[in-house]
Amino acid sequence: MNASDESLMTSPNAAQRPPPAEPVPEAADGSSLEGRMLGRLLARLGNPELEFLLWTGERIAPAGTDPLCRVRIPSRAVLLSILSDPQVRFPDAYSDGRIEIEGDLVRLLETVYRASARAPAPMGFSRLLAHLRRPHVNTLAGSRANIHHHYDIGNPFYQLWLGQTMAYTCAYYPTADTTLDAAQTAKMDHVCRKMRLRAGERVVEAGCGWGTLALHMARHYGVKVRAFNISREQVAYARERAEREGLAGQVEYVQDDYRNISGRYDAFVSVGMLEHVGVENYEELGAVVARSLGDNGRGLIHSIGRNYPAPLQPWIEKRIFPGAHPPSLGQMMRIFEPWDLSILDVENLRLHYAQTLRHWLELFEAASAEVERMFDAKFVRMWRMYLAGSIAGFTTGTLQLFQVVFATRANNDVPMTRAHLYTR
Amino acid sequence: MNASDESLMTSPNAAQRPPPAEPVPEAADGSSLEGRMLGRLLARLGNPELEFLLWTGERIAPAGTDPLCRVRIPSRAVLLSILSDPQVRFPDAYSDGRIEIEGDLVRLLETVYRASARAPAPMGFSRLLAHLRRPHVNTLAGSRANIHHHYDIGNPFYQLWLGQTMAYTCAYYPTADTTLDAAQTAKMDHVCRKMRLRAGERVVEAGCGWGTLALHMARHYGVKVRAFNISREQVAYARERAEREGLAGQVEYVQDDYRNISGRYDAFVSVGMLEHVGVENYEELGAVVARSLGDNGRGLIHSIGRNYPAPLQPWIEKRIFPGAHPPSLGQMMRIFEPWDLSILDVENLRLHYAQTLRHWLELFEAASAEVERMFDAKFVRMWRMYLAGSIAGFTTGTLQLFQVVFATRANNDVPMTRAHLYTR
Repeated sequence: MNASDESLMTSPNAAQRPPPAEPVPEAADGSSLEGRMLGRLLARLGNPELEFLLWTGERIAPAGTDPLCRVRIPSRAVLLSILSDPQVRFPDAYSDGRIEIEGDLVRLLETVYRASARAPAPMGFSRLLAHLRRPHVNTLAGSRANIHHHYDIGNPFYQLWLGQTMAYTCAYYPTADTTLDAAQTAKMDHVCRKMRLRAGERVVEAGCGWGTLALHMARHYGVKVRAFNISREQVAYARERAEREGLAGQVEYVQDDYRNISGRYDAFVSVGMLEHVGVENYEELGAVVARSLGDNGRGLIHSIGRNYPAPLQPWIEKRIFPGAHPPSLGQMMRIFEPWDLSILDVENLRLHYAQTLRHWLELFEAASAEVERMFDAKFVRMWRMYLAGSIAGFTTGTLQLFQVVFATRANNDVPMTRAHLYTR
Repeated sequence: MNASDESLMTSPNAAQRPPPAEPVPEAADGSSLEGRMLGRLLARLGNPELEFLLWTGERIAPAGTDPLCRVRIPSRAVLLSILSDPQVRFPDAYSDGRIEIEGDLVRLLETVYRASARAPAPMGFSRLLAHLRRPHVNTLAGSRANIHHHYDIGNPFYQLWLGQTMAYTCAYYPTADTTLDAAQTAKMDHVCRKMRLRAGERVVEAGCGWGTLALHMARHYGVKVRAFNISREQVAYARERAEREGLAGQVEYVQDDYRNISGRYDAFVSVGMLEHVGVENYEELGAVVARSLGDNGRGLIHSIGRNYPAPLQPWIEKRIFPGAHPPSLGQMMRIFEPWDLSILDVENLRLHYAQTLRHWLELFEAASAEVERMFDAKFVRMWRMYLAGSIAGFTTGTLQLFQVVFATRANNDVPMTRAHLYTR
């Protein structure tokens, strides 16, 4: 219905620089071949408020706009590369330092996203390309490889910018001035209260990250947790932390796939794993949920989502999150409907994820010299692009964040209202 | 995945009588032909805790159960009629007074629903029958006929048992002791606050019943409302009421189909109409919503729903609500996803609908002599069955009640949290 995911710069982009004060060469009106090609590109994007500045000095911008940002393209070779597959090659060119972006990166991406939501339906070629791109499949072995790619690049790197909680998912901001760490803690409480956890209950967690939620549930709600994760770095970190904090008797971290969850539990929780499951596996995930829960079972699944089914931006899928797919709410229902699970509550927290990402990006920029020492300059630009693009995704509604609370059909032990979530 | 909608008595059943004290004939073990047929029926239903008492004195009940209720079948002709198409013929036989039910009607239906949720997959024949039953289609003319069938049988009848508000949809009970009228008012406020209505805004309502919500929005939130309904009796009542209450300048009732809604509005609301729309029309309903809303548009759709796609119980569809279909949440997404509308909030109020229906049934029973004078004894039994069956549907999770809040993609003027719904 709209072309946002077909847009060229789709997700992340540019450098954190102020608009330039330097004199720019005299403007051209897109009359060269390159200019006409970029003009068509801008039209396909819905004419966002940005300007291309070519190596010839030519400037191309949508007519009548006052550009928010400028993209400097240094050579015909770079331009042709970008035009051949803009969704992937544009962010690659930025990561490699072959193009420069002047102006605020997040604003640039927001203008592209907003414009592309108004743009005409995507062209056949882009649609074809999207179909040809098969995302990395999530078989048991495929999932291990996909998760290893992102989550096993080193805990010290993530410690630089995720804050104290090491929670790598959308936080919850009860007020506008809540700090990142407080918002991550508030998110965990929001999740636990939505599930109405009670002391002595058994909880299974699918995809536990660095183990923070599992420890929080055990410590503050008195439950016993089995937490599954296939990232060996994360599991090692989580086990060490549980030992250190004296909670190893209450929390068991299992380095295994969610498909291998066994046993019966009072609640099932998964925060930020569904993005890595793949729609083709949702019914099987639902089978795991259904067999894990007794008659009064309930649970919560928290995931990035979309307004309608669409593949993940291909650069993100290729470079950052192989195999990832944020589902529409309709797609998420494939988890629940085959198993007669009742949806009790859905909350969309997309603006909370934008705020979380702003906090992460701020910490990331503050640590960028350290990140560059750990990896290299290209890595820094790539991750900057990914974080900034994600902010723009959530602020423009290209991405959503769904928290879905569910229960088994037979469960009438559910609260009549949600007032208990908002009173202490 | 389960057979609830294939069950024999599926929705409503029996008379409001206490368990009998009279002596019953000696028990048989289902060894007659009739007994064996009924035994198979009970097995297909998942062995609910009920007993059949035949004209021969034979009693058939699932082995090892202590039946909660008894169904008296007076002749072989009635039995064969029921067995030929139990989902329709059983409630018909009750409505016609050909069978009697001893024990609490709601409990009887609940035991059938609960048992059938555990029963094996429905048999081929029942499945075939369900497919052969084409519900009444919702073309423009079909919808008029369908709505006329239910809503135009006389406002004085509905006034007997809907309470002061004449709201014929699920109420909202902030506390267990809230009265029906207070709960209907609380529902309207819950809906208005979820949409964050502001004075001076324009609201369009699709399917406005007797006009109560439109008047409430105008009076208490200062908005201008255009409210659509194809029931002439309801529109006449609503217009008269708006005049009498001095709100005719703020509320316009339009006797027309939702498909003919025109104009631009700040909010779109529909409470209890979607059940009559038909899944095949959801994308068109979404088109109406999308073209009605500007960039900061939002709205709410409130509807009976299901855990998974399934046809309405066929007796209810045939006798009570022609053309009706309660959708799964996945089906509801066909309204929103094609138009890039964002789901902000879903709340399941099924236990509130059970409570609303208990209040309605109580008022209905108190007025049953009056209803019988207006119509006849068969009408009273038919409606008792429908109301009791609906209670059982909501208490057992066979039916759900979804309130879905949505907004246009571009709308960032949405509250960060839902706390505002729970603080006055």
